[in-house]
Amino acid sequence: MEETKISENHIEGRNAVLEAFRSGKTIDKLYVQKGLKDGPVQSILRAADKTDTMVKMVEKDRLDQMSETGKHQGVIAVAASYAYAEVEDILENARKKGEDPFILLLDGIEDPHNLGAIIRTANLAGAHGVIIPKNRAAGLTAVVARTSAGALNYTPVAKVTNMKQTIEKLKEQGLWFACAAMDGEVMYRQNLKGPLGLVIGNEGNGVSRLVREACDFTVSIPMKGDIDSLNASVAAGILAFEVVRQRG
Amino acid sequence: MEETKISENHIEGRNAVLEAFRSGKTIDKLYVQKGLKDGPVQSILRAADKTDTMVKMVEKDRLDQMSETGKHQGVIAVAASYAYAEVEDILENARKKGEDPFILLLDGIEDPHNLGAIIRTANLAGAHGVIIPKNRAAGLTAVVARTSAGALNYTPVAKVTNMKQTIEKLKEQGLWFACAAMDGEVMYRQNLKGPLGLVIGNEGNGVSRLVREACDFTVSIPMKGDIDSLNASVAAGILAFEVVRQRG
Repeated sequence: MEETKISENHIEGRNAVLEAFRSGKTIDKLYVQKGLKDGPVQSILRAADKTDTMVKMVEKDRLDQMSETGKHQGVIAVAASYAYAEVEDILENARKKGEDPFILLLDGIEDPHNLGAIIRTANLAGAHGVIIPKNRAAGLTAVVARTSAGALNYTPVAKVTNMKQTIEKLKEQGLWFACAAMDGEVMYRQNLKGPLGLVIGNEGNGVSRLVREACDFTVSIPMKGDIDSLNASVAAGILAFEVVRQRG
Repeated sequence: MEETKISENHIEGRNAVLEAFRSGKTIDKLYVQKGLKDGPVQSILRAADKTDTMVKMVEKDRLDQMSETGKHQGVIAVAASYAYAEVEDILENARKKGEDPFILLLDGIEDPHNLGAIIRTANLAGAHGVIIPKNRAAGLTAVVARTSAGALNYTPVAKVTNMKQTIEKLKEQGLWFACAAMDGEVMYRQNLKGPLGLVIGNEGNGVSRLVREACDFTVSIPMKGDIDSLNASVAAGILAFEVVRQRG
């Protein structure tokens, strides 16, 4: 589950990491050794701050384990495998197709296999894009790209700092927001036509309270069995294709 | 993807493997070193034949790699993590609930994560059981049990030698069979009420020709995107919940 194992996305060492930020490369996560405070490290932390990059302060041992060159000098950056889109690109995608926007918003999907499968589903359900949060969520790593089975080449994925604010801005543009919730209203009874954002929650905890409150209504999958919940990517698929059915 | 990595299911050495067969333990796969033909190995092969166990003849190197004890003596058996049910148990499960049978038949799902997710889905969609083939498919390993999120404790899974014959027998008991196929009839247009078997194919190749021909009709998910196909467990979820919708 740790995308940090994928060597092609690793950038190690102070100069290489600083250069990556300067060149405008999207960094998904920056790992910095605890206690380091010298000039170059400060420059890297400022660059990370400016670009809103997620920073994790870790022990040297952790970096040693992650390192493939053996020369991390206290910093390892994990670059995105794919470029992120802007939310505006997703709306433009819908506009070009002459369709009501249909966006999947993932409130903290952590497993890259789930993220990849959901991007794959989004593409085939005709969604115009996917929005993921910057923190506590899988980014666009090589595992995600592979699991998406090519969908990442077609379906724009935007990364936002504040999911709630993004929802509020998109509401101003006419979108309605459906929040997936186990205790929600059965999906068949909700109107899922028109400009729609479908919000899917984290594997263990579902949609966070603030994001749920920002939504217009809830949708649930009618469950019949003995256990708790579906796999997150399966649930996303069932909900996304209920949208397809209603629009079809 | 190889269940043979899971130590808790490994039985190594001639006496241990023969004893496992004698005790009636379900063996998912038997690995035997190529060229071995002595008495004890013959006894093991006869036991495997009698119980219709899948046998793989492999080089000694492969067994050495798989071995955890270092003493495999040319034979390693992989025991099922969970007991298999009989097809009759699945029908009985439906009878007890006073419902029309609803069975998922998986024609060669190879990835244990997909198999686990589909068993999880089967449980929550109210399916009465899952049928898998003996060969070229994932069995009930520890990975499957874990990925099923507990569903394996409730949803019976039967393993059959010949999927086509199983379908034909179940047809005599009044079941209809829907074959998932990308070029099939859109699922909303098919009648999925009544006693039903839903057949899902292999991740790469879909449902095999013979099994497809044994089915009564096809079902497809309406696809809108740029890429080829959904993840197998996502597709199974969407199809299974279309059954739920129509019956609901």
